[in-house]
Amino acid sequence: MNADQRFDELALRLGYSFDGEIKIGGNYTPLIMDGDVAYVSGQVPRVGDTVIVTGRVGAEVLLEHAQLGAKICAMRALALLRRQFGSLDRIRRVLRVTVYVQCTDSFTQHSEVSDGASAVLFEVLGEAGLHTRTSVGVFQLPKNASVELDLMASGTAR
Amino acid sequence: MNADQRFDELALRLGYSFDGEIKIGGNYTPLIMDGDVAYVSGQVPRVGDTVIVTGRVGAEVLLEHAQLGAKICAMRALALLRRQFGSLDRIRRVLRVTVYVQCTDSFTQHSEVSDGASAVLFEVLGEAGLHTRTSVGVFQLPKNASVELDLMASGTAR
Amino acid sequence: MNADQRFDELALRLGYSFDGEIKIGGNYTPLIMDGDVAYVSGQVPRVGDTVIVTGRVGAEVLLEHAQLGAKICAMRALALLRRQFGSLDRIRRVLRVTVYVQCTDSFTQHSEVSDGASAVLFEVLGEAGLHTRTSVGVFQLPKNASVELDLMASGTAR
Repeated sequence: MNADQRFDELALRLGYSFDGEIKIGGNYTPLIMDGDVAYVSGQVPRVGDTVIVTGRVGAEVLLEHAQLGAKICAMRALALLRRQFGSLDRIRRVLRVTVYVQCTDSFTQHSEVSDGASAVLFEVLGEAGLHTRTSVGVFQLPKNASVELDLMASGTAR
Repeated sequence: MNADQRFDELALRLGYSFDGEIKIGGNYTPLIMDGDVAYVSGQVPRVGDTVIVTGRVGAEVLLEHAQLGAKICAMRALALLRRQFGSLDRIRRVLRVTVYVQCTDSFTQHSEVSDGASAVLFEVLGEAGLHTRTSVGVFQLPKNASVELDLMASGTAR
Repeated sequence: MNADQRFDELALRLGYSFDGEIKIGGNYTPLIMDGDVAYVSGQVPRVGDTVIVTGRVGAEVLLEHAQLGAKICAMRALALLRRQFGSLDRIRRVLRVTVYVQCTDSFTQHSEVSDGASAVLFEVLGEAGLHTRTSVGVFQLPKNASVELDLMASGTAR
């Protein structure tokens, strides 16, 4: 399987489609290329019009559900990269991932939440999906999302 | 009007001057160039010596005031870029903007706060001001600022 | 003294060794090179297996102790860069540093915490250590760390 097939297979397994428009709000853009580096805007776990993982991790949101949220953020970022590059096989390297987790004052498993996103990147992209990462616990996120993720990746345009 | 004139016109409309030194504290620098990419340090809504938008958004700070804060952060970043490049017309693209909002535990309109900054970038720079963006809600910010913003932009040096 | 000697001297003065493996958790990597730019993953003040500065700054953690945490984060980042480049003298510029401080709702001296990291970078690298910086106050951090830092630097590989 190539990276695009692995992405489709994982989307099927997660039970969500990322084929539609990746909606964002506001006067900005979801992805910008500068040379061969792609910058992807902060992604919340939105599918279509609905943010499907909301609330505070460590309170009403369990770790496993937050990890699902991180996976969906990563899938959205990949969907945007695929659209830009034509194929996910054109990604050379995910350079940096930052994961923001809406959490309680005593929740400290931010890295474990981020592991959901990292697993997606590695499963779909293989070695090219290996990345540097920063995980932090924030007070709130847009739309009450439980997790938000942005990233940079390098690749070869069509 | 060119970008510099639009900047001056917007500064006049906002009622603040960004002509003076953009003051920062600590052992770091407000802007660094690497090749044709400029990195701008985190900006709070300071004018001269005073941070003019402080406090927690969603509590004592209303959305509209937070948006003003985001606008001032963006104007400061533009003032630094103008000094570096000689003219804002030399900016090729704003690549990434990260906006941190000091908010309550239930405030979820971080994107709307950031729209203040995005509007400034687009109004002054036009298409070159379109950017990727990440907005998060944090627990506190330096000097009790309500909002902080950093960015990266590419351009052509003098 | 060259940068490596200044690093060793500072490690000795701080009383910690950064010679061992810089451990991280999860499916990511501590450092990635893209061209001549190095991305370093988020570092907490861990020495060996122990995060030695934990807790909330402004409450049980005093400013001075948080600054020590920021110094250790910066030393870890430098240790990773040294391993990558062969020598810290090969670093051309630290481009961007982001510092996340786990703080109380009224703590506003995030910049002062970050000054600990900036002092280390400047002491070891000299002018090459001057950087852009963003400091924010977050709600929690991995392993209850008081501070977390990530950075980008440019340099010449071996």
